[in-house]
Amino acid sequence: MISTMKEFTIKPDPEDPRLVRRVSGVDESGRPVETSVVMERPLTLYLNGQEIVTMMTIGDHPNYLAVGYLLNQNMLRGDDVVTGIDYDEDLETVVVRTKRKTNFEKKLRKKTLTSGCAQGTVFGDLMEKFDDIKLSADAIIKTSWLYTLSRKINMAPSLYLAAGAIHGCVLCAEDCPLVYMEDVGRHNAVDKIAGYMHMHGVSAADKIFYTTGRLTSEMVIKTVQMRIPILVSRSGFTAWGVDLARRAGLTLIGRAKGKRFLALAGESRIVYDADAATVAEEDKRSRRKASVEEDAA
Amino acid sequence: MISTMKEFTIKPDPEDPRLVRRVSGVDESGRPVETSVVMERPLTLYLNGQEIVTMMTIGDHPNYLAVGYLLNQNMLRGDDVVTGIDYDEDLETVVVRTKRKTNFEKKLRKKTLTSGCAQGTVFGDLMEKFDDIKLSADAIIKTSWLYTLSRKINMAPSLYLAAGAIHGCVLCAEDCPLVYMEDVGRHNAVDKIAGYMHMHGVSAADKIFYTTGRLTSEMVIKTVQMRIPILVSRSGFTAWGVDLARRAGLTLIGRAKGKRFLALAGESRIVYDADAATVAEEDKRSRRKASVEEDAA
Repeated sequence: MISTMKEFTIKPDPEDPRLVRRVSGVDESGRPVETSVVMERPLTLYLNGQEIVTMMTIGDHPNYLAVGYLLNQNMLRGDDVVTGIDYDEDLETVVVRTKRKTNFEKKLRKKTLTSGCAQGTVFGDLMEKFDDIKLSADAIIKTSWLYTLSRKINMAPSLYLAAGAIHGCVLCAEDCPLVYMEDVGRHNAVDKIAGYMHMHGVSAADKIFYTTGRLTSEMVIKTVQMRIPILVSRSGFTAWGVDLARRAGLTLIGRAKGKRFLALAGESRIVYDADAATVAEEDKRSRRKASVEEDAA
Repeated sequence: MISTMKEFTIKPDPEDPRLVRRVSGVDESGRPVETSVVMERPLTLYLNGQEIVTMMTIGDHPNYLAVGYLLNQNMLRGDDVVTGIDYDEDLETVVVRTKRKTNFEKKLRKKTLTSGCAQGTVFGDLMEKFDDIKLSADAIIKTSWLYTLSRKINMAPSLYLAAGAIHGCVLCAEDCPLVYMEDVGRHNAVDKIAGYMHMHGVSAADKIFYTTGRLTSEMVIKTVQMRIPILVSRSGFTAWGVDLARRAGLTLIGRAKGKRFLALAGESRIVYDADAATVAEEDKRSRRKASVEEDAA
C-alpha cells in the first residue's frame, strides 16, 4: 500500500539562487549585518484566455501551482484534460489550456476572504461540493509514523531553515515524506501539491498531509477537496477548522511537536503503536527550528 | 508628543465567551482532553448597497474592521464622511454608508493575491497611490522603547495566550501600546486598527506599528497606506516586503525577540539608547510564548 514514489521525490532547494536573496541591514547594536530573505514574485494565471488571478509566489513550480490553484478553486475538474501549460518567466504568466471550454466570469465576482495565513479566497460553491466528498474510511495514521514524519521533515534542508518566513506542506505516505513544497503563502504550497498529484495521478486515499501552518477552515477545505483523509500540523486550530473537519470526517491532528499532539476530529484513524513516554523530546536542531518557526507566522 | 490615549485603550478580551470555544479531543496517549480554540465567523461587508466581500473574523470589532478594510482597499478616502454603520449580528452583515456615492463594480473584478498570512488581495491601484505617500521624516524609535513595547505586549493577556492560532497587531506611541487587536487573519487585525484610527482621528506620523506576523509585501503596503513610519515584528522578512519598505522609506524591524532585532530598511530612524548587552533575554513566560508562537503561523 505504500506509494511507489521515492522519499522526498520533490523537496525544497535552498541552494536555488532564484529563491533566496542576501540583503544587508543593521542589528540591535547598530552593526551592519547580512541576512537571507525569501523571494516573492507575481505570477498571473490564465485559463483558456481568461485572466483568473495574480499570485505572489517564490516561483519554483509555476505549472503545479497553476493547475493546483484551478483544481482547488473548482475551476478544473478531476477529469479535465489539460492540453497545455505555457509558463513565461519574463512575462510572469502561466496559461493553462483545457479540452473543455471554461467560463468563470461570473464566479470571479463573488469571493469569500478566508481567515488566517490563507489564500484569502474561496468560492461559495466549494462548500456545496464539500459535503458530497467521502474520505477513505480505511486510512490510518500510526503514532510511530507521525513521529518519524515530523523528524524527517524538520531535519530536511529547506528555505525555511535557510531564510525563515516561509510555509511548508508535505504529502506523505505512512512514515515517508513524498512531496515537500514551500512558498511565501501556505495556500501556494498546498496548491503546488494538488497540481503535482493531479499531473502525476497520485492517489489521495492512503496519504497524510503535513503542514507547518494553522489548521484553519481553508486548510481543512483544501485537504478534503484533495480527498486526503488525514491532516497534521505543528500549529494550532481554529473553531471553524475543527467544525469542518468533523463534518467531513477528516482526521485533524495539531500542535504536533516532539512527542506531543492533539487530535480534535477523526480520532478513530489513529493507531497508538508508539509509547509516547519513550519518544524523545525534539532535539536541539528541531527546537531551534521551533523557536524560529514563528518567522513563518 | 506622546499620545493622550491611555495604555491599552483597546486590548484583547480573552474572557469574552464569544471569541473562544472549548472543544474536546484526544492527546498523544489517546487520553481525552479539552482545549480552547478561537472562533471564526463570516461577516459580509456592504458599502452603500454594494456587496464588497465576506470576511472570516473573530467578530469583536465589526465596525472598525469594516471601515478599516474599506480604507486599506482605497474604497474609502481619508476625507470621506461615514454617515452610518449598521452591524447585524444575526445576519452577519455590516453596512457602511458614506456621503459620497461609491461604485466599485469594476474594481472588484481585478485582484492580486498577495503572499503570506495575508488578506490575499490588493487592488492594482493601491500601488499607484503607494509611491505618492511621504512618511514622517521626524519619527524615531528608541531601542529602549522597542524592548519595553515587546515586553508589555507579550505579557498582556490575549486570545493568543489563551488559545493560540491567532495574530496580533498593536498601534504604539513611544514605549506605550495603545490599541491591541487580534484576529484569525492578521489582515483583519490591521484593518481593525486602521478603522479605529480613522473613526477616532488618531494621527499616524508619530506612531509605531507592532505585529506578530511576517513582514510581507502586504504588511508593508498597509502600514505605508496608514502613514505609519515604523513597522516592527517578532517574525521574519520577505524580499518584496524589504523592497517596498525601502521604496517608501519605511523603517522595517524584524526578528525582534529578547534583545535581538534586525532592521532592513529605514535604519536612520533608530536611536540606540539601550545597551543591548544589558537587556535580559526574554523571560520564561515570553519564551513560552515564543515557543508556541508558531501556532499563529
